[in-house]
Amino acid sequence: MTDPDRLPVAIDAMGGDKAPAEIVAGAVRARDELGVSIVLVGRPEDLGDAEGFEVIATSEVIAMDADPGRSVRTMKDSSLVRAAEAVRDGKACAMISAGNTGATMASALLRMKRLPGVFRPAIATPIPCPGTDHPTVLLDAGANVECSAEWLVQFAQMGAVYARHRYGIETPRVGLLSIGEEPTKGSPLVKESHTLLAEGSWAASSGGTFVGNVEGRDIMSPDIDVVVTDGFTGNVVLKTLEGGMKALVEAILGAFASSDETKAAGEVLFPALLPLYGQLDPDNTGGAMLLGVGGPCIISHGSSSATAVFNAVKVATEMVDADLVGALTRAIRPDEPT
Amino acid sequence: MTDPDRLPVAIDAMGGDKAPAEIVAGAVRARDELGVSIVLVGRPEDLGDAEGFEVIATSEVIAMDADPGRSVRTMKDSSLVRAAEAVRDGKACAMISAGNTGATMASALLRMKRLPGVFRPAIATPIPCPGTDHPTVLLDAGANVECSAEWLVQFAQMGAVYARHRYGIETPRVGLLSIGEEPTKGSPLVKESHTLLAEGSWAASSGGTFVGNVEGRDIMSPDIDVVVTDGFTGNVVLKTLEGGMKALVEAILGAFASSDETKAAGEVLFPALLPLYGQLDPDNTGGAMLLGVGGPCIISHGSSSATAVFNAVKVATEMVDADLVGALTRAIRPDEPT
Repeated sequence: MTDPDRLPVAIDAMGGDKAPAEIVAGAVRARDELGVSIVLVGRPEDLGDAEGFEVIATSEVIAMDADPGRSVRTMKDSSLVRAAEAVRDGKACAMISAGNTGATMASALLRMKRLPGVFRPAIATPIPCPGTDHPTVLLDAGANVECSAEWLVQFAQMGAVYARHRYGIETPRVGLLSIGEEPTKGSPLVKESHTLLAEGSWAASSGGTFVGNVEGRDIMSPDIDVVVTDGFTGNVVLKTLEGGMKALVEAILGAFASSDETKAAGEVLFPALLPLYGQLDPDNTGGAMLLGVGGPCIISHGSSSATAVFNAVKVATEMVDADLVGALTRAIRPDEPT
Repeated sequence: MTDPDRLPVAIDAMGGDKAPAEIVAGAVRARDELGVSIVLVGRPEDLGDAEGFEVIATSEVIAMDADPGRSVRTMKDSSLVRAAEAVRDGKACAMISAGNTGATMASALLRMKRLPGVFRPAIATPIPCPGTDHPTVLLDAGANVECSAEWLVQFAQMGAVYARHRYGIETPRVGLLSIGEEPTKGSPLVKESHTLLAEGSWAASSGGTFVGNVEGRDIMSPDIDVVVTDGFTGNVVLKTLEGGMKALVEAILGAFASSDETKAAGEVLFPALLPLYGQLDPDNTGGAMLLGVGGPCIISHGSSSATAVFNAVKVATEMVDADLVGALTRAIRPDEPT
């Protein structure tokens, strides 16, 4: 993790519900524990001494609920836009933001540009699978509300490349999210995508394999590595799981708290439940990755703590060292010299 | 529950993974405990003495994985088609099947017909909400892969009427499933539906109120009573939650089983967890309801046990006694005499 030639990781210090305090605290942990070089991007008046980090000084902050397209176009001196520029200009190897998701995406897209041949970048989000050693990669988790079948095929390619580089899965099993396993089931988009994915020419350059349609219940199963869908469905799935897990965990904790006896029993069980809790904690996933732009871009969730930032830095440097972006480029345009 | 004038409930005795044994066992329980009159629909050679129930004898069974449209058109003497005919012909007050969902829908649609003014029937599925006294009604959970905004408005109407009759919610809060609360977010279908729903003329006749866009994480929250979406997204949501809950519950049970100490602690906790377990058990929901056809039609899940059938009969008779179908008719066509 201490490659001396690696450029610093650019962190949007202003992005996220707990910015800048938790963001900077996570950067400190990454510097101290991983020896990673980091540059903070943000307003000097909010960062103070910036814990000794190099700072790219910016004057503007894009609010969490701002309109992504407009804010990125008009706020050219915002921390998000400047973080993406740092990667574009060869001043940083990757960017991380826990800020406005849409604006992060727009900044990365406008400043880093799409990789050659990429129709649309997609957000790849890890979905925890209890009992397995790696999450399922779900994409697109919200970048593209409406998609074409060709885009979904490219999501399959990019998802397979990402699953191999991120989780070491040699031949990632890619499923197409639908409402039945049969190729004849689903929306017109799904049916057309199924045909293209089954044809298989996408798989050779990405190293993935198409396992057919999968259903919602398969996402968290150990039998699948990558789930491809449009950004509307993917985002609904992601948030549905978040809400469902939260409701269930709260109900279970409520049962634990219901009497002195159950409280005592709960204390006995907590150590056994901790690994599961850790697996489900979004702070531990390293964040979502925007695939298809000209540099690694990690989108952390808005409530990111220092731990989330630490893990995002770890993933960012791993993906830089593994040359994820180069691998994506070669998978999308296998016949072109790179 | 023992209205002497109520027609019998028609149960497809052949439908479901555990048919006919569990189906008939559930019918027996409903007769014994609720005093409900029941007619079984199925093959006499499979039903034997049919536990003394009246039987509508049929010669065919539509397989769980058969093509719905074709099987319903060609297998006119199947238990599913005959069950729907029994309702149409005034021999039964409602139908229940744990068989092929698509074929159940097609049978109901072709035999009972749509209610006047209904564009498309929709499947309304109860989503358990731990800690609240009633589930969220999700529709369409899979009847219509592609929808128009007008259909979604009608789903809102039907969902509100159903939530009031089924769960006694005076003014059901109806949300439109999207990927952000802002009316500008989501697919073109969602944006157009939002405009129509916000306009509000649908609400007067159905008694519901539009609370705007909701996200996946809101489905299991106590702040919403009805969630409207297209059948593709609804089915993905339903199965994603099923899979997610199953994975989480299995992981927790695995932690409980990890040592003698945790096993003992688990035994202390089980009684406190039982109500939650009961709330999440699909056998206890009474099944999904096909709204918009000319009679109550309950779609039970394929793995239905006797308990699921018992609860489905209970819901069916309640909805008959509450005249759900009449209320739906009046909501859809408020200006016509009924």
